Amino acid sequence: MKIKTETMHFTTPLYCESGRIIEPYEIRYETYGEINEDKSNVILVCHALSGSHHAAGRYEGDRKPGWWDDLIGPGKALDTDRYFVICTNVIGSCFGSTGPMSEMYPSEEPYRLKFPVITIKDMIKAQRQLLSRLGIHHLRAIIGGSMGGMQALQFAVDYPGFADDIIPLATTYATRAWVIAFNKVAIEAIRRDPRFKNGNYNRGDFDEDGLDGLAIGRIAGHISYLSPDSMDRKFGRNYVSTDGLFELFGRYEVERYMEYNTNNFSKYFDPLSYLYIVKAINTFNLARGYDSLYEAVKRIEDRIHLISFKGDILFFPQEMEHIYKMMQRNNQACSYHCIESDYGHDAFLVEVNKFEGIISDIFKEDTI
Amino acid sequence: MKIKTETMHFTTPLYCESGRIIEPYEIRYETYGEINEDKSNVILVCHALSGSHHAAGRYEGDRKPGWWDDLIGPGKALDTDRYFVICTNVIGSCFGSTGPMSEMYPSEEPYRLKFPVITIKDMIKAQRQLLSRLGIHHLRAIIGGSMGGMQALQFAVDYPGFADDIIPLATTYATRAWVIAFNKVAIEAIRRDPRFKNGNYNRGDFDEDGLDGLAIGRIAGHISYLSPDSMDRKFGRNYVSTDGLFELFGRYEVERYMEYNTNNFSKYFDPLSYLYIVKAINTFNLARGYDSLYEAVKRIEDRIHLISFKGDILFFPQEMEHIYKMMQRNNQACSYHCIESDYGHDAFLVEVNKFEGIISDIFKEDTI
Repeated sequence: MKIKTETMHFTTPLYCESGRIIEPYEIRYETYGEINEDKSNVILVCHALSGSHHAAGRYEGDRKPGWWDDLIGPGKALDTDRYFVICTNVIGSCFGSTGPMSEMYPSEEPYRLKFPVITIKDMIKAQRQLLSRLGIHHLRAIIGGSMGGMQALQFAVDYPGFADDIIPLATTYATRAWVIAFNKVAIEAIRRDPRFKNGNYNRGDFDEDGLDGLAIGRIAGHISYLSPDSMDRKFGRNYVSTDGLFELFGRYEVERYMEYNTNNFSKYFDPLSYLYIVKAINTFNLARGYDSLYEAVKRIEDRIHLISFKGDILFFPQEMEHIYKMMQRNNQACSYHCIESDYGHDAFLVEVNKFEGIISDIFKEDTI
Repeated sequence: MKIKTETMHFTTPLYCESGRIIEPYEIRYETYGEINEDKSNVILVCHALSGSHHAAGRYEGDRKPGWWDDLIGPGKALDTDRYFVICTNVIGSCFGSTGPMSEMYPSEEPYRLKFPVITIKDMIKAQRQLLSRLGIHHLRAIIGGSMGGMQALQFAVDYPGFADDIIPLATTYATRAWVIAFNKVAIEAIRRDPRFKNGNYNRGDFDEDGLDGLAIGRIAGHISYLSPDSMDRKFGRNYVSTDGLFELFGRYEVERYMEYNTNNFSKYFDPLSYLYIVKAINTFNLARGYDSLYEAVKRIEDRIHLISFKGDILFFPQEMEHIYKMMQRNNQACSYHCIESDYGHDAFLVEVNKFEGIISDIFKEDTI
């Protein structure tokens, strides 16, 4: 599989939903496979909160491949022998696209808290700019889970007919208070961490010892990505054998899992980016800018394939069913699949085998 | 209603499950109503993580009454005209009973991290000592929700026949990984807060500015006490009107709720007590010390009345149903009620009207 990682530089302004502009800006992106002559084989993949443009393949020396490697590759559901798959690092993130720790032109100082609040609409607008620059004016499909699914849906509403098929997984039409509450843990934990210095930390400050606030917030995140049942199966009430049951800080296996994953995360993910992306998730509401959710959804001209997971306790299946029912009433092209899974929200990343068939089917009649 | 608040001092050791002892120790408790001549009208009420012995009535100048005032009082389900209700502050807590910030005799220094790990078994053992001292060797009933329900169940298993009726609400037979994960947020947030000083803070340090770590941990707690539906109803996606949608730290109403409740809490609740009580919840397992859960439950001689709440996402109804089914198979006296509520775990505190009838019925044939 041919993988390319590139950065596109834009000197034109990005007009944000807030009314503010980002100028200049950069978008980092990765592509898999090759574009065909009439550019009709392009699939856009959108990443979630902690993801990046590195969706598939393995970098030299890396233990793990890209985050959706099970789905993207030769002969896989997103078949890179036939399709040109592109994934961009969202604006505001910290893996090469312009974000709060980027230089605020013309100074060489980072934006920090002066970076504009960005929204899902802004993310897809930036993606659209990139596609334009690449001469891509139509997409075969857009796919993404969680915040990636928000982008896919927003794309369908804001740019009707831009893609043939839209495949949002494990997402919603508007972020509920429940999710905002989970995100609140991270916001408060980061803000109140003295080493965060109200955003005035320096690049590299957390490379050795990650920011505690981000690690703590991430524990709350991990709770919401799993589910009670998946935790029972994965950890049960097992105790880390070297810790004593009657030691105050002795740990259950679920605690060790949380520590390990979150400490590591807090070393490589930028806390300001985390705050900005969480804000974008919190403010996501497909209806904003339109008269109602109904009016927003009515604009959709692409075929929508909604995939939810039964055990998802972050974005519940009912939320996607709500979109489905609305589109059905309008006779819009839409399908809805609720996957049997007790894996929780993470299922869209870890149980690819349960839904890859649905995705292959969408492309099976293509003569590409 | 006659309310008395007392502290009982014990010079005999409390032998903890860990093998360690606490000596001397004090138990703070509150009573409502009057004890009858043969002491046959005593009901023990057990409090939850953040609760205290102040279960009912209103102290002079207080805005709010005790935490279960809807349930306890003259003519109420726990009728103080007929019953003598007693509620103790659990050992390890910070409202007058011996806990980690109590003096470690013979020194005048607090125990801090030298306080022994306590368990639900230890809590009820201390309660039993208090009852003995008061000349009470049998209880009409024991009732409690959440951690209070754990105590009620543990009482039934450890001291069979000590009470006539046991009424555990919104609780479980063993704490699941899911709950331990929520508690992990608090543990890490407290431990990593520099002002916690590894437990070497001084009394009063957080009276003005609560400990951030405790406030942050408490946000995770509040998430688990509510439910997605209750948050929708309570907050929806409403924005705090004075904050701008495009301000990074602008807030949704659910965020303001979390801030308000948790900041306040972190000023009056002792962080070491929080760690110790959370540990007691994490280690709760009715089976421990017995050959199996089945063997533990089989010991029960009291009538058990299990009350769960449909929307409880901390201790799911299925967990209490599991006990019910086990007792049914054994022909043990047991009833199970699952209350229709989308209030979440908090329902045991805030929707008393939905289950007070079940509780009144338990006592209606008494000729006291």
